[in-house]
Amino acid sequence: MDRTEISTLGEFGLIRRLTDKLPQTQPSTRKGVGDDCAVMQYARDECVLMTSDMLLEGIHFNLEYVPLKHLGYKAAIVNFSDIYAMNGTPTQITVSLGVSKRFSVEDLEELYSGIRLACERYGVDMVGGDTCSSMTGLTIAITCLGTAKTDEIVYRNGAKQNDLICVTGNLGTAYMGLQLLERERLVMQGNDHATPDFEGKEYLLERQLKPEARRDIIQRLREAGIRPTAMMDISDGLSSELLHICGQSGVGCAVYEDKLPIDYQAVVLAEEMNLNIVTCALNGGEDYELLFTCSLDDYEKLVPIEDVYLIGHITRAEQGTLLIGRNGEELPLKAQGFNAFQS
Amino acid sequence: MDRTEISTLGEFGLIRRLTDKLPQTQPSTRKGVGDDCAVMQYARDECVLMTSDMLLEGIHFNLEYVPLKHLGYKAAIVNFSDIYAMNGTPTQITVSLGVSKRFSVEDLEELYSGIRLACERYGVDMVGGDTCSSMTGLTIAITCLGTAKTDEIVYRNGAKQNDLICVTGNLGTAYMGLQLLERERLVMQGNDHATPDFEGKEYLLERQLKPEARRDIIQRLREAGIRPTAMMDISDGLSSELLHICGQSGVGCAVYEDKLPIDYQAVVLAEEMNLNIVTCALNGGEDYELLFTCSLDDYEKLVPIEDVYLIGHITRAEQGTLLIGRNGEELPLKAQGFNAFQS
Repeated sequence: MDRTEISTLGEFGLIRRLTDKLPQTQPSTRKGVGDDCAVMQYARDECVLMTSDMLLEGIHFNLEYVPLKHLGYKAAIVNFSDIYAMNGTPTQITVSLGVSKRFSVEDLEELYSGIRLACERYGVDMVGGDTCSSMTGLTIAITCLGTAKTDEIVYRNGAKQNDLICVTGNLGTAYMGLQLLERERLVMQGNDHATPDFEGKEYLLERQLKPEARRDIIQRLREAGIRPTAMMDISDGLSSELLHICGQSGVGCAVYEDKLPIDYQAVVLAEEMNLNIVTCALNGGEDYELLFTCSLDDYEKLVPIEDVYLIGHITRAEQGTLLIGRNGEELPLKAQGFNAFQS
Repeated sequence: MDRTEISTLGEFGLIRRLTDKLPQTQPSTRKGVGDDCAVMQYARDECVLMTSDMLLEGIHFNLEYVPLKHLGYKAAIVNFSDIYAMNGTPTQITVSLGVSKRFSVEDLEELYSGIRLACERYGVDMVGGDTCSSMTGLTIAITCLGTAKTDEIVYRNGAKQNDLICVTGNLGTAYMGLQLLERERLVMQGNDHATPDFEGKEYLLERQLKPEARRDIIQRLREAGIRPTAMMDISDGLSSELLHICGQSGVGCAVYEDKLPIDYQAVVLAEEMNLNIVTCALNGGEDYELLFTCSLDDYEKLVPIEDVYLIGHITRAEQGTLLIGRNGEELPLKAQGFNAFQS
């Protein structure tokens, strides 16, 4: 593959190349890349949502096994997911990159092709950003704007006693995908002739490397006439997110271990690796599924919606935040989550 | 000074501490830190402006001589400056940080105190962000939103033949401040007993370490009834920015060397260091002054405005982009600018 050094293009040349022919599909985008700011104009009854995420090499991703295109795709998706988690629609992103000389222009084009693909699929415009050289590694900071009608925004603090607790998709799968990638990386390190063994576990890799944001669920809830009372996306693990919702809503919860949706490939790998799959489902991060609560009155409308799982209910705060085990035992939910700052 | 390790607080504890008692002064901010997204609601006739900047340790700043509080202040200001450069008003920022274990909680509080001070002075709300651990050094990515009435936004592409070319403040001063800091750093390295000598050059340091965004000029132009035809802030040097305006507007320019506003402290240091002050004024970055063009008809209204300097005029594209020297010689403007990617 060709390798063009970034220094041959310079900062402006690089930005021109990376942002060449950026499509503009959002009606709210009036001016994208090319001035001091991007300019948007939103409809009268719309609120603007804003979220920012930073991904750092060596902390959030390892380029030994994460292809740059996938990394770009995921970096965009994690932001879209935050917008959907407010019951909104993502509309624009800016992308700031810090890149060391290790990366070629073609590498950055790969990364951008993933961001562009995510934008294309989700109907989001890339409207600006910043590209800087870095002393070390790769840093990606994305900010996403989105819109929502004022009275449709769903916050974390609206859960009420007796509300149903629901999650989408399955839990712990992205975490198991990461364990698999790490295991195979270590095997490969010790042996030049080894090839990684992913057979029958492709879904785990996909969940780790190429997550999707649950736009489909937001759409189906809307069609079903269900307005969640509280909602978050699951980026740090179910326990951690549920404790946020309970804390901010001033309520407790009871979640049933046997109701947690878990994928069978994840179960098989957890067995192989001697990991407790329930712990992984509760605390594994990066699933980007939705966790939401809704009124008990919505039960009938909820049941037919595919890929939504009822895992428990909201209680009074004094009843605590509990996991109910398979034999009825009550355990306090703990946010082990991902703590990147732990030593 | 106390040193609290970040790991003792964890990610959420750290975010709580850094975002404690954040004021909310913008009427458009409906929900700041604490959910998946910040939520804003703007007035009907307002467009939303968005800009992102990333600052990386070792590239954009050197913590040997940049105090963390100043760094935070500057990181916010450079974003505000982009919003003013569109004739807008900054309203909200998100702050994403990547920090290594070298930094303590108190260090980050220092950094945040600078960001908070800038926000307070410019009436901007901090509404979100992301705080991550990093393998190396400090990374700051800020995204700023702002507003402007649709028909008041000033782009880069509106300059017309015979328009006046104006700059604010003075040029090359921040660059000379950086040269001074670098010189004294090298002196200190060789000698434990040396103290840095900044006497009589304090203004240069201030311009490098604590720049301001030119809100005052935007205000005065508005009061005078002047609507610039094109505008940018000067972050990469006058030549580079002027070539952007001419390129995007499809015009040429003539700028007069003897009209460039240059501070006397910068002249003195350039003499000492054997640097060409005109080259520094044309190509030194980080002044965060405004460069704008306006109609010749506005001349009378422009003259009384303090700290605005007329440096030339817009010509037809075929006449080129020229610097007119003190003896009338014509030199093509070149964008040497800051090219962080050059080897």
